[in-house]
Amino acid sequence: MDVQQIAEQVHQKTQVETTVRDVEKVMSGLARTSHFWEIVCASQKPFNVVAEIVEAMRSRGLVNIGEQGDIILTPEGEKFLSDNRIFAKKDYTCPTCEGRGIWREALSELAQKFDEVTVDRPEAILDYDQGYVTTRTVVSRIALIAERGDLEGKKLLVLGDDDLLSIAAGLSGLPEEVVVLEIDDRLVEYINKKARELGLPVKAEKYDFRDKLPEQYVGRFDTFNTDPPETLEALDVCMTRGLTGLRGEGCAGYFGLTRTESSLKKWNLFQQMLVNKFNVAITDIIHEFNHYVNWDYLLGSIRDDYAFVQVKPRLNWYRSSMYRIEVLSGFEKRENKPMPCELYIDEEALIYKPDNK
Amino acid sequence: MDVQQIAEQVHQKTQVETTVRDVEKVMSGLARTSHFWEIVCASQKPFNVVAEIVEAMRSRGLVNIGEQGDIILTPEGEKFLSDNRIFAKKDYTCPTCEGRGIWREALSELAQKFDEVTVDRPEAILDYDQGYVTTRTVVSRIALIAERGDLEGKKLLVLGDDDLLSIAAGLSGLPEEVVVLEIDDRLVEYINKKARELGLPVKAEKYDFRDKLPEQYVGRFDTFNTDPPETLEALDVCMTRGLTGLRGEGCAGYFGLTRTESSLKKWNLFQQMLVNKFNVAITDIIHEFNHYVNWDYLLGSIRDDYAFVQVKPRLNWYRSSMYRIEVLSGFEKRENKPMPCELYIDEEALIYKPDNK
Ligand SMILES: [Fe+2]
Ligand SMILES: [Fe+2]
Repeated sequence: MDVQQIAEQVHQKTQVETTVRDVEKVMSGLARTSHFWEIVCASQKPFNVVAEIVEAMRSRGLVNIGEQGDIILTPEGEKFLSDNRIFAKKDYTCPTCEGRGIWREALSELAQKFDEVTVDRPEAILDYDQGYVTTRTVVSRIALIAERGDLEGKKLLVLGDDDLLSIAAGLSGLPEEVVVLEIDDRLVEYINKKARELGLPVKAEKYDFRDKLPEQYVGRFDTFNTDPPETLEALDVCMTRGLTGLRGEGCAGYFGLTRTESSLKKWNLFQQMLVNKFNVAITDIIHEFNHYVNWDYLLGSIRDDYAFVQVKPRLNWYRSSMYRIEVLSGFEKRENKPMPCELYIDEEALIYKPDNK
Repeated sequence: MDVQQIAEQVHQKTQVETTVRDVEKVMSGLARTSHFWEIVCASQKPFNVVAEIVEAMRSRGLVNIGEQGDIILTPEGEKFLSDNRIFAKKDYTCPTCEGRGIWREALSELAQKFDEVTVDRPEAILDYDQGYVTTRTVVSRIALIAERGDLEGKKLLVLGDDDLLSIAAGLSGLPEEVVVLEIDDRLVEYINKKARELGLPVKAEKYDFRDKLPEQYVGRFDTFNTDPPETLEALDVCMTRGLTGLRGEGCAGYFGLTRTESSLKKWNLFQQMLVNKFNVAITDIIHEFNHYVNWDYLLGSIRDDYAFVQVKPRLNWYRSSMYRIEVLSGFEKRENKPMPCELYIDEEALIYKPDNK
C-alpha cells in the first residue's frame, strides 16, 4: 500500500486526474486538522478528490471518523505519514490581512458601513450559481483596486454583482461612476434602490453575459470586475465582455479563479487564453484573496454517503485567487456579438463542483 | 499642455513606450511623496521614464526641485493634477507582512538567526548584476515556499544565490537537501563554509547558467528558486535550467520579476513562454514581495544630470513580484544542452536599467 496506489484509485473513482503530490497535499492538510472543510481549504484540491482520498485512508485503517464527523489519524496513519515523509501543512498566512497583503485599520469604517447598508441583502440562490464574499473580502478588493490606481476618479464596470462590490465602491467615495450588469432581477432592483437611497454614483441593469455588451458601454470604462463561472467557455465570454467595456491600454480587469472548481490544467489553458488571445498581461495572482460566506444550500446539495463530509463548515472554506490583468498598447477590441454558451456546466466543472456553485 | 503631450515627449526622449496612464501613475506618486525613489516605487515605472516625466513637469513649472533634491508641486502643478483628475496614490499595503500576505511573529527568530549568521556576507558587485533582498524578504520567501508544501522534506535547487536563500532554508530545518549553483566564487565558498560550520544540508557549486545542468541534478529536485536577469533570452535559459532540475508534475518554481526593468509587454511575452512553451501553470504573482537592500554602487552608476535623481534612497525602492509556477502532468523535459546567451543586456533592459542591475 502506498501513496501512488491511493492516487490511482482516487483517479479511477472520481475521473479527476490525481497525482501523488495531490494525495500528499490532502494528507498534509489532514495532519494539521480533523475538519473536512479545513482539509479541502488547506489542500486546494477539488472537493470530491479530497473526499475520496479521506475515504481511501479510512478503508485502510489510516484514519477513524469520530462521532461529529472528525477525521482522526490512527497510529497506523501516523506511521504511514512519517514513513512517506508527509508533514503537517504549515500556515504562515498574515493574520492582519488574512493573506491578501492589503489592509489598513482605516478600512474598518468602510466595512462597518457596508455591513449596515447591506444587512437586508438578497440571499444567494442556486439558480444563478451564486455565493458572495465576506465583507473583509469586498472591502479589501476595493482597497486593492484603489491602490493600483484603478478606482479613484475612474469608471468601473461590474459584471455580475452578488458580492455587492458596486455598493462598497460607491460607499468608498472614490469612483466617478459604477455600472452593474447583472442577470438576477432581485440584485438589479436592490442595488438601484440602495444607490438611490444613499446617493451613490451606481446604477444596475439587467444583462445576460451571452448578449452583446450594450453599445453605450463599449469602450467606456477604466476598470472591470467580474466573478466568472469556471468553464473555459464562460471565462472566454466574461473576458470578452469585460475587455470590450474598457477604454484601452493601461486599463485593468479584476476577477477570481478557484482551485476547487478548476484544475491547474484549466488554469494553464485559461492563462494561455489571456496572454495569447486577449493579449493582456497578468499583473497579480493573489492566493485565497476571496473568501466566500458559507451558503445555505451547501450540505443539501452535496453527497451524503460520507459522514465526514456532511459536517457544517466551521470556516469560510470556499476561496479563490484574485487575478488582475492589464491591457497593453495595441489593444484590439474583439467583436461585440452574442455568444451563446452554457455558463454553469462543463465537463471538468461538473466533476469538481461540490454543489453546482 | 496636457498629459498626452508629456507622454509623447517622454516616449521620444527615452525611446520607452510611455502612455497617458503611465504619466498619470508617476504624477499620482508625486502627489503622494516628494522623494524620487518613492515615486519610482509607487509608480512601478522604469527609472528613466520617471526621471523624464519629472523633468518635463519641472520645465513646465509644475514642480520645483528643493535643495535636497525634493520634488515639490507648485500651485500650477496642484491645479494641473486636479484639472486632469489625477489623485495621490493610495497605499493600503498591510503593515504586518509588508504586503506579502505571509508573516507570523514566530518567523522573527529565523530572521534574527539569519542576520547573525550572514553578518559577514560578501557585498553585492556589479560584475554579476548582483543585489540582494532584505532579511524580511528572504525569510518570507522561505515561509511562502514552506506554506505551499514545497520545502519540508523536499530537495531544493537554488540557481544563483546572492540572496543567501540556501542558508535561510538550511536554518529553517525544513528541507532535506539544498543545492546552490552559482557563478560567483566568493558566494560558492561563503555558502559552503557556513553550511560546514553550521551543519546545514546545503552545498554550493560553481555553475554558469549557459552550461547544461550537471547530469546528477537532472530530475532530482522538488522545487527551484532563481532570480533571473530580465531579458527574455535569460528568462528562457533560467526556466529551462530550473525545470530540467525538477522531478515532474506537482513540483514548483519560484522567481522574481520587476516592473522597473521589464515592461508589461515583456511580462506578457514571458508569460506566453511559461504557459505555452514550458506548459506550466502560474499559481501566484505577489506584488512587490521582494525588497532589495540598496546597493553601494547605485548613485555612481546612474545619470547625474538631474539633481532630484542623485538623492540617496530613503527606502528599499527596488522591488520585484514573486512568481510561483507549478509543473503539470505530461511534463516533458527540455533538452539539457549549453545555451549561449547574453545574460545581462537586451535592448529593453539596456533602456530600463538604472544601474545595470
Ligand atoms: Fe498582512
Ligand atoms: Fe540578486
